[in-house]
Amino acid sequence: MHNRNKAIVLLSGGLDSATALAIASKDFECHAISFNYSQRHVSELNAAKQIAQSFNASHQLIQLDNAVMSGSALTDPRIDVPEAGAEQGIPVTYVPARNTIFLSHALAVAEVQGAADIFIGVNAVDYSGYPDCRPEYINAFENMANLATKAGVEGQRLTIHAPLINMSKAEIITTGSALGVDYALTVSCYQADENGRACGVCDSCRLRREGFAAAGLEDPTCYQSL
Amino acid sequence: MHNRNKAIVLLSGGLDSATALAIASKDFECHAISFNYSQRHVSELNAAKQIAQSFNASHQLIQLDNAVMSGSALTDPRIDVPEAGAEQGIPVTYVPARNTIFLSHALAVAEVQGAADIFIGVNAVDYSGYPDCRPEYINAFENMANLATKAGVEGQRLTIHAPLINMSKAEIITTGSALGVDYALTVSCYQADENGRACGVCDSCRLRREGFAAAGLEDPTCYQSL
Repeated sequence: MHNRNKAIVLLSGGLDSATALAIASKDFECHAISFNYSQRHVSELNAAKQIAQSFNASHQLIQLDNAVMSGSALTDPRIDVPEAGAEQGIPVTYVPARNTIFLSHALAVAEVQGAADIFIGVNAVDYSGYPDCRPEYINAFENMANLATKAGVEGQRLTIHAPLINMSKAEIITTGSALGVDYALTVSCYQADENGRACGVCDSCRLRREGFAAAGLEDPTCYQSL
Repeated sequence: MHNRNKAIVLLSGGLDSATALAIASKDFECHAISFNYSQRHVSELNAAKQIAQSFNASHQLIQLDNAVMSGSALTDPRIDVPEAGAEQGIPVTYVPARNTIFLSHALAVAEVQGAADIFIGVNAVDYSGYPDCRPEYINAFENMANLATKAGVEGQRLTIHAPLINMSKAEIITTGSALGVDYALTVSCYQADENGRACGVCDSCRLRREGFAAAGLEDPTCYQSL
């Protein structure tokens, strides 16, 4: 466990990023970063802190400017979170340039801390409507990052790891469970209450419930009314 | 002047970005964005506001998390700003992933406002030591941006314009002067005082002075002690 290389892990507090942290922790000393951008469910940030602790990762909360990432159901209270199943095309829960802003901050943190590895829990299977969850996007970001930074120019190849990108939700849950993720700590719901209890009906809740069922594992999620 | 397309312009308050705004204003309705990241010279932000007004551009100040972009002479008061001329390699004034974080925010703002054009005043001639001022970096960011966003996926090609990238400082000054930039408003100095007066001796001041001399134009900069 000594002298392991450091990795920066994007940690939202949800099921996917908790699993990404578990995977990263196998091989790296992890520094987890979370973002506050007036997302509806601040309970996610509390979850992120606890999840980081459970994997002995350091944790940094980064404040983003609330005015920038507007125009999404996740950031604008005037837009309803959909509850009628996945839409065609790009969902209203898409937040403009969100993963690009997240990864850019991770890049700065990596450079300051001398880390050459960044983990992000994006998934192209369940979130096929989000452009910034696709493999071609992750590859393009990695290419850009290696041209952007002192480390990249000086020969330390920077890698963006997206270990969940081609997994089904059931595979993610099975993988994380085997690595000791306590999914009771995680919050996936787009409209969780202040105690982190899930609505049970939004797209994210639906995918999560189906995932536990398909994995044949008990769903430890605390729901508001079920 | 009616129905012009909108462009997002990164505006620091310095000479280069003021010139980029002037160039963008020829063809676009401009929305300028500036960043507060505890840079040493807050006077730049006041300059940015005045420069935006002078080109009838709307102006947005975006607050970044102060803890992220540390470890540079521009953000860490414990590191001295060099005054002995350009160094070899990447200067200590390099800020980790700065342009990537700036452009990522511009991308989000562009997406929210429906703009397909972003202007950045980077220059590869005078700042050859900064990895994120090179054409290959800008091209890689543009490629990534078109994979990242709803607009890119839906066919609205997003363009990152870097009109100064191959200009000398004298060419930048000549171009901006012809377009009506009031360079007395701009602050280039890495360690300007609170009134925006320049030190006259840092790398940025030196390049600026040489630029006005080479352009054969009077230098309107207000210096602290010269």
